[in-house]
Amino acid sequence: MRALVYHGPGRKSLDEHPKPVVQKPGDAIVQVTHTTICGTDLHILKGDVPTCAPGRVLGHEGVGIVEAVGSAVTGFKPGDHVLISCITACGRCDYCRRGMFSHCETGGWILGNSIDGTQAEFVRIPHADTSLYHVPAGAAEDALVMLSDILPTGFECGVLNGQVAPGSSVAIVGAGPIGLAALLTAQFYSPAELILIDVDSHRLEVATRFGATHVLDSSTVDAVREVRALTSGRGADTVIEAVGVPATFELCQELVAPGGVIANIGVHGTEAPLHLERLWSHNITITTRLVDTVTTPMLLRTVAADRVRPEELITHRFGLAEIDQAYDTFSQATKTQALKVLIMP
Amino acid sequence: MRALVYHGPGRKSLDEHPKPVVQKPGDAIVQVTHTTICGTDLHILKGDVPTCAPGRVLGHEGVGIVEAVGSAVTGFKPGDHVLISCITACGRCDYCRRGMFSHCETGGWILGNSIDGTQAEFVRIPHADTSLYHVPAGAAEDALVMLSDILPTGFECGVLNGQVAPGSSVAIVGAGPIGLAALLTAQFYSPAELILIDVDSHRLEVATRFGATHVLDSSTVDAVREVRALTSGRGADTVIEAVGVPATFELCQELVAPGGVIANIGVHGTEAPLHLERLWSHNITITTRLVDTVTTPMLLRTVAADRVRPEELITHRFGLAEIDQAYDTFSQATKTQALKVLIMP
Amino acid sequence: MRALVYHGPGRKSLDEHPKPVVQKPGDAIVQVTHTTICGTDLHILKGDVPTCAPGRVLGHEGVGIVEAVGSAVTGFKPGDHVLISCITACGRCDYCRRGMFSHCETGGWILGNSIDGTQAEFVRIPHADTSLYHVPAGAAEDALVMLSDILPTGFECGVLNGQVAPGSSVAIVGAGPIGLAALLTAQFYSPAELILIDVDSHRLEVATRFGATHVLDSSTVDAVREVRALTSGRGADTVIEAVGVPATFELCQELVAPGGVIANIGVHGTEAPLHLERLWSHNITITTRLVDTVTTPMLLRTVAADRVRPEELITHRFGLAEIDQAYDTFSQATKTQALKVLIMP
Amino acid sequence: MRALVYHGPGRKSLDEHPKPVVQKPGDAIVQVTHTTICGTDLHILKGDVPTCAPGRVLGHEGVGIVEAVGSAVTGFKPGDHVLISCITACGRCDYCRRGMFSHCETGGWILGNSIDGTQAEFVRIPHADTSLYHVPAGAAEDALVMLSDILPTGFECGVLNGQVAPGSSVAIVGAGPIGLAALLTAQFYSPAELILIDVDSHRLEVATRFGATHVLDSSTVDAVREVRALTSGRGADTVIEAVGVPATFELCQELVAPGGVIANIGVHGTEAPLHLERLWSHNITITTRLVDTVTTPMLLRTVAADRVRPEELITHRFGLAEIDQAYDTFSQATKTQALKVLIMP
Repeated sequence: MRALVYHGPGRKSLDEHPKPVVQKPGDAIVQVTHTTICGTDLHILKGDVPTCAPGRVLGHEGVGIVEAVGSAVTGFKPGDHVLISCITACGRCDYCRRGMFSHCETGGWILGNSIDGTQAEFVRIPHADTSLYHVPAGAAEDALVMLSDILPTGFECGVLNGQVAPGSSVAIVGAGPIGLAALLTAQFYSPAELILIDVDSHRLEVATRFGATHVLDSSTVDAVREVRALTSGRGADTVIEAVGVPATFELCQELVAPGGVIANIGVHGTEAPLHLERLWSHNITITTRLVDTVTTPMLLRTVAADRVRPEELITHRFGLAEIDQAYDTFSQATKTQALKVLIMP
Repeated sequence: MRALVYHGPGRKSLDEHPKPVVQKPGDAIVQVTHTTICGTDLHILKGDVPTCAPGRVLGHEGVGIVEAVGSAVTGFKPGDHVLISCITACGRCDYCRRGMFSHCETGGWILGNSIDGTQAEFVRIPHADTSLYHVPAGAAEDALVMLSDILPTGFECGVLNGQVAPGSSVAIVGAGPIGLAALLTAQFYSPAELILIDVDSHRLEVATRFGATHVLDSSTVDAVREVRALTSGRGADTVIEAVGVPATFELCQELVAPGGVIANIGVHGTEAPLHLERLWSHNITITTRLVDTVTTPMLLRTVAADRVRPEELITHRFGLAEIDQAYDTFSQATKTQALKVLIMP
Repeated sequence: MRALVYHGPGRKSLDEHPKPVVQKPGDAIVQVTHTTICGTDLHILKGDVPTCAPGRVLGHEGVGIVEAVGSAVTGFKPGDHVLISCITACGRCDYCRRGMFSHCETGGWILGNSIDGTQAEFVRIPHADTSLYHVPAGAAEDALVMLSDILPTGFECGVLNGQVAPGSSVAIVGAGPIGLAALLTAQFYSPAELILIDVDSHRLEVATRFGATHVLDSSTVDAVREVRALTSGRGADTVIEAVGVPATFELCQELVAPGGVIANIGVHGTEAPLHLERLWSHNITITTRLVDTVTTPMLLRTVAADRVRPEELITHRFGLAEIDQAYDTFSQATKTQALKVLIMP
Repeated sequence: MRALVYHGPGRKSLDEHPKPVVQKPGDAIVQVTHTTICGTDLHILKGDVPTCAPGRVLGHEGVGIVEAVGSAVTGFKPGDHVLISCITACGRCDYCRRGMFSHCETGGWILGNSIDGTQAEFVRIPHADTSLYHVPAGAAEDALVMLSDILPTGFECGVLNGQVAPGSSVAIVGAGPIGLAALLTAQFYSPAELILIDVDSHRLEVATRFGATHVLDSSTVDAVREVRALTSGRGADTVIEAVGVPATFELCQELVAPGGVIANIGVHGTEAPLHLERLWSHNITITTRLVDTVTTPMLLRTVAADRVRPEELITHRFGLAEIDQAYDTFSQATKTQALKVLIMP
């Protein structure tokens, strides 16, 4: 089959690769019909992810059709249309039983990392019964690719951890795909203020279209002052970090109201200063989280009920043969105005 | 009346001071029968608390007898024996209604800070109806002084924020009075492991007596390795910071298990590094809190039911005339083995 | 002043009545600009509410302008535009501190019940600081009358107690004003299915307009079968009882899914059978609640942010002189298609 | 092998029965070393459980040693000492993912009900990875049999659903084994009052020994009056129903405080009246639950940490050959003073 293979920092190619087969009783083989590229794929290509060795098929998001299942799989059969979770979960270890699929002892984020991934014609999914989801009848399968990773990430790490509530104030720092996914799903809870902060005016326009009540270009305005002005001088009840650098994490500390939450989504490469000399008495909460995808069933129901439209995140579409172009488009997002690029093997 | 008055950094004296009077309809005047000294009083004397001006009567903890009340006070009358909360709460502002008495718009920590305090024969308590508590019949009034500040601080900032639960593992960094208060109240929730970490062998002995399941002298053992050994290699579900310096806060980041909580109690004077480059994917929660004393009614019931014995924290007793000696004893705790010193005006 | 006075079962009249005055330091006198009629007022007129004695001014909902305040009131001053909560809360008793304003030891539902109410030109509000709310700048004051009682009742007793969540299924039994208030506020949480059940086709039309995803006329269809068909055979995650008779409470028990909640709002006059022989093993929760109005600040923010439009509940408007006509219109709702009637003294 | 087989109402015998074999990839065969009898077994023998057909091996509690596992089992291997959960959970269906193992679509309570059970030398456990638990090193295996059913039932259905909290008041109606299991585990949360109500003076003595703060013989005292006297006139914050008849469920409604919870554990055969005419405004919660055994890992840790001693529930011990005598002893508990009887095949 054809698959996008990582060959070490800066190198990838669309290769002929052995088609995966069932290895364990819990495996399923899925024919990938839709996949996409994540910021993490770019990190791998920079050489930042040591668990991903050369020779690996990339990709951890996808929708497809089950081709074969192992003897222990009871929830899926060949022909079933399925959503592939970016997180593989055994459903039985201590972490899985506590809803922390991200830390599954034999799973977690392994697809396109320590095992072959979804940017291919076929993919092997271990622990299929707890890592695949049935596509609801009538659902738009391209939209559902957004439920593999980005939508649950924005929702779980940002919105749920951030305790967004009716009438509350929310500031999201970073209007990239992940910040926008948080924006879309924050609206499940009807906050009063939903403020997006970024330095890219196009993304802020998108944010307005996606339901932000206010957008702030922090390169031209004092975001802290503006957020305080919008929140009776207090700051935001929920601040969502969707960038991943010390400067934005420090900005979040300025934005949060006493009693508020900073929910980190960003992937950080270095430590950041925590201003405990000021915050020790502010009754705040800071959370970190690798997406667990435990809310996938809930999210599937909200999509089916048209409470959220994840397809709004898709800006470009490519065939598998054009995957290099897809990577170029996605990695030059400022120029191309790309959010998520859909790839159809 | 006699009162301990702050006269600027390093200076205090037991002076003759005007007896307080009712100023507002919600005020009560309380004759102080028991008070104590807090680490914060020492901070004031170092000049670290700019809101506390020279001339101020120190102290924010106490038990006493109501002498007079303003026209709007309905819950208390002269002669009532009362516990004085270290936090003054109006009960009506937005913060008070959300249970954040610490941030009350006309209260919070003001006693012995921006208004005269309890290390005196009498004290004026604003918002008396929501800042005083009736002493339960038969209760030991000296024990109750521990409920003004230290017990709710350990409980709210450490135990509740730390989500201590039956069968969970808890590590407390710092076995001073506040860490010990967290130790006492963590036992309300029956954790499996309750590990105290300090460098003072006497305090670790006390911790063992107070119910710690394990004590670690971090000057002689590798606390991180030991805690992991006690927790199947994972780290502690709850880590309570009860010191307030960057080194201990960093230690907490090493001790916490994936999915765990770091509950900060320590008063920090400087920023501390937060290792997001490691923790961003560990699903952890960090909390800060200035005590709200919203759990005082609950704590009073646990004391009345003998579920906790706060008097165990009292190591020394003095009259008001000996208050200088009380300060000396408390501030040289390593030498004197003092935890809390009781002062009876 | 003019006021609607209750004179015993079946008798009321718009009388000249003494204007109220400040009696206690915490009182405020409010000039009523908008009020309305509640189903409970009809209960009083039937003689069903023994705490309401003849001679009482009726009404517990309203918006108005502060005319005078007692010496202990700090949050309001003459001229302030205010929302009057149907629940009077001292903010200091044990129940108030636990957020159960409905059970306040010196308050609760007393307006138009054990003390004079709001269907008058002026009303005395005890515990004004914790029972009045500032009208936000620019808010439509007629819409806000819906926040005195009906909107917090639908929200607290139905939606919050019912644990409505994104993607969940909700069935509301009864599409009267209170059921519709639950319908409006349930949408804060983006449920997937929001099913209204009633026997009045006009009210079901209104429900559709207000955002119901499905409406069922239980006089012509088998509601239990239909709800199961809409919920994969399971029943609804949340069932809200908004009628108050045994038959509808039994219907709720048929509608609820394993693991679901029945949130009762209805005012019941008799016991109802609870089918524990079936439900003991279904992991369900049943809740009852007299509205506490603790969510009034949150609801005010959602109205200001246009997340809900309570004015949609207002179908008729009257002057105080026409209050008899207002009662006739409200009490004959099937004929008049009235939901809430606005009265402007 | 030898097994206790149900032969229809009133009939059972210790028969030679085919030894179970692995049927599906997720199965394990366990050699039973300890089992016990549950009240439900007596219900089956009365003919009250139609899902249990003649020919069935009885029993759903046990500890044993794994003899064989299917190809998909990864968590257990032959020779492992295991606790058998009374609830079989697939870990993958919608209910299991929500923590409702009791409603597992291919499991739930099936052992000794719709498939052969544990009162035998060997038992087949489907979904072994999520239905068995490793016995901690050094644990007393007889004590652990109490964790198959009775301890998680008392804890989950009574204590957790009842929201027992430090300083709260708890009344348990029924001091049989299940009420006593609730009593033991309620102490994890340090309630102030822990009141046991029964009519059997021996059981009330046991309750006192197990940690009840008060016991009430409702055949000789007015339990409602006594509970109110112990709770400042309010009633209990948590009321646990551990009998299962309408009279005790009605008593619970009298005992519960405004804002409190009635947590039902009892298995009810008929409906019971719910006094909504009084309770509609009391802000109460009623819960039902079939045990999910999701807290088994937590309970194992509390046993290992000596926070609870489940072996205290064991009053009698028998070999498998004496199982008829064990049933007699257990079913005549008033006479024999039996709580739980241990059977060692």
